[in-house]
Amino acid sequence: MVLAQSSLELIALRGGIGAVPGVKLAGVHAGIKTRKRDLALIAFDAPQHCASVVTTNEIKAAPVLLSARHLAESATTRAIVCNSGCANACTGERGERDAMATARQAAALLGIAPAEVVVASTGVIGVPLPVDRVQRGLERALAHLDFGGKAASDAAEAIMTTDRVPKLAAYAFYARDRRYVVGGMAKGSGMLAPNMATMLAFIATDYPLSRGALAHLLVQACDESFNMISVDGDMSTNDAVYAFAPATSNGSEVPIECVQALRAVCLDLARTMVADGEGATKTLEVRVSEAVDVAQARAIARAVLNSNLVKTALYGEDPNWGRIIAAAGAARVGLDPQQWTLEVNGKSWIGRGCVELLSEAEAHRELEPSSISIGLKLGLGAAAATGWGCDLSRDYVRINASYRT
Amino acid sequence: MVLAQSSLELIALRGGIGAVPGVKLAGVHAGIKTRKRDLALIAFDAPQHCASVVTTNEIKAAPVLLSARHLAESATTRAIVCNSGCANACTGERGERDAMATARQAAALLGIAPAEVVVASTGVIGVPLPVDRVQRGLERALAHLDFGGKAASDAAEAIMTTDRVPKLAAYAFYARDRRYVVGGMAKGSGMLAPNMATMLAFIATDYPLSRGALAHLLVQACDESFNMISVDGDMSTNDAVYAFAPATSNGSEVPIECVQALRAVCLDLARTMVADGEGATKTLEVRVSEAVDVAQARAIARAVLNSNLVKTALYGEDPNWGRIIAAAGAARVGLDPQQWTLEVNGKSWIGRGCVELLSEAEAHRELEPSSISIGLKLGLGAAAATGWGCDLSRDYVRINASYRT
Repeated sequence: MVLAQSSLELIALRGGIGAVPGVKLAGVHAGIKTRKRDLALIAFDAPQHCASVVTTNEIKAAPVLLSARHLAESATTRAIVCNSGCANACTGERGERDAMATARQAAALLGIAPAEVVVASTGVIGVPLPVDRVQRGLERALAHLDFGGKAASDAAEAIMTTDRVPKLAAYAFYARDRRYVVGGMAKGSGMLAPNMATMLAFIATDYPLSRGALAHLLVQACDESFNMISVDGDMSTNDAVYAFAPATSNGSEVPIECVQALRAVCLDLARTMVADGEGATKTLEVRVSEAVDVAQARAIARAVLNSNLVKTALYGEDPNWGRIIAAAGAARVGLDPQQWTLEVNGKSWIGRGCVELLSEAEAHRELEPSSISIGLKLGLGAAAATGWGCDLSRDYVRINASYRT
Repeated sequence: MVLAQSSLELIALRGGIGAVPGVKLAGVHAGIKTRKRDLALIAFDAPQHCASVVTTNEIKAAPVLLSARHLAESATTRAIVCNSGCANACTGERGERDAMATARQAAALLGIAPAEVVVASTGVIGVPLPVDRVQRGLERALAHLDFGGKAASDAAEAIMTTDRVPKLAAYAFYARDRRYVVGGMAKGSGMLAPNMATMLAFIATDYPLSRGALAHLLVQACDESFNMISVDGDMSTNDAVYAFAPATSNGSEVPIECVQALRAVCLDLARTMVADGEGATKTLEVRVSEAVDVAQARAIARAVLNSNLVKTALYGEDPNWGRIIAAAGAARVGLDPQQWTLEVNGKSWIGRGCVELLSEAEAHRELEPSSISIGLKLGLGAAAATGWGCDLSRDYVRINASYRT
């Protein structure tokens, strides 16, 4: 497959993070959840540079804090442990000890240092992590560690909460006459919002990158993907994206193909999350263009994607465009009421001066497909940004009214 | 009734804005809606000082902009025209002409200047105002103009959109050996959010106040009431609160009883709005205390009240306290993860260091009543703020998926 936005040839692969050479995975049932897989282990053949983008919530879960400390303490990373079924957030000092115990257990089993382990958790907040079960689960995971798509699929399944499908993406590219892969896995459904919400993603490549280059590329890719999706505007205590690359490079030269492959993996994972948003029946792409700058375009795209009124209208296929523009105006980043125009699925919908260019019936028909694209041109400049979201359905309420019961 | 928060005696009255001497009202069917009352006319016996607090949305409806111009042009106001069924927002130049026509029609009928008329609209965005129907409605309203509770109830009904009940509040107080009244009416349901969402309120008193004093009191009262309620976090193009007082005072001395009565009217109207939030089955009061300052306390109260995950958990009576604290942390205004404690209905729920003090079953029982109060103590200072919201139910989605159809 050729990436539409680029002239570069990226080859889409199956297997997600499992398509990256040198990455072993397992996904097992540790007993944190009643029946489903709930523990993923990822081990790298060689030491990795690791970069992260984590939640900006002031309440950060213990594993988020511990992993940050590990990244500061150790130049390289060798393994990731991620459990679902328990967020280990708001668990006080016990939570810190439990996160540490998890890293120590994995380190002991793999024969590496605890600081070479990244830990992550997702699930209910305020419940302690059953570390004895994690220990047994890690032993089982070690026995199952394997390369390839099946292992990656098990691991991606083990980090799911209310997700309906495991989320994997991978792209190959050619550089220096060699084939490289960027692959990732993610979980995220509900609580998704710009600025890292309840989502976790682990992305690896076999292209060697310095820590600085990897960090730079990851921030850039997150800004265009995970930070531009919204399911419900909430931001979680556990959100984190970790990226890994072989720690054999200290340079900062990066082929454009590698940048694009990382971006494509993040975009694919982000859009899969939105499509799998809690209760979602439709996905929405909002492209804001003719903006003064990218920050303005992004702020407006997010405001529209986060509006409950836009989301419920979309669910009801109600062409209530006033809600879109009211949400854009509420962002308060310099929208000019006289200049904007609106498109739906590429068709002109509202012209300058609030002129309706589609009839109610035509606009209603445009909202029938399961995937809708809205184009909002601000008439102010040349910058643009795109974001993705979903509708707000009765099922969202059903799912979230009884998440724990 | 004696206001709990005060040692002053305020006497709660029936009739809302109709309880204020010198205020005539009517609420009629003009034909903007199919059957229901849709046009309110309020006329003052004497010239009034008027102060306003309006939406900060960059997309402002034509009547909001016109009324702002009228308040700038004329020192006093004599009448208010408010229609429901059509927001006259995003209606371009035609919208401006239509708002002006409405003011002119009312002025001609009442024998006053157009700039002495405040106009307001609420309803669907993007649809032109049928001014001929407004004209006929105004003639009918003029014939029905009357003092008292029945007329006020008709007027309050005529400004309703998805509201289930007309919203009226009034308090009497004694000052300078005379009895005075502050009374108001409001509409608001759905789209409610901090910073003036789809809500309109008209508040009058027979206590003479200078324009400056009235403006000051109104901003203060709005900050503690209408700006501290949330139904769905959306902010509308039409929100406005207008307050009126006889224009016979130029001084700024205001008895504390008058301040308290205005505050009580705003609080009553705000809480009625929340109780009548679209699809609401429960109301939530969030009191944030031990904050560094009021701004911090307000920001956190709003963040909790705006969280879809908190709102759906409340709907499901799920004691998922992690969502409350995650929402508080997402406000990013300096919450200390080690210091906070949580109460529900006055009972200690979570102690410092995330210690659960109520069992799951006990906490669940506390969420059964239709009115829930959450107390979040930050452990940082001495400031506090209170806000009000409601749950997010399947009915919210049903109502908003087909608002226009």
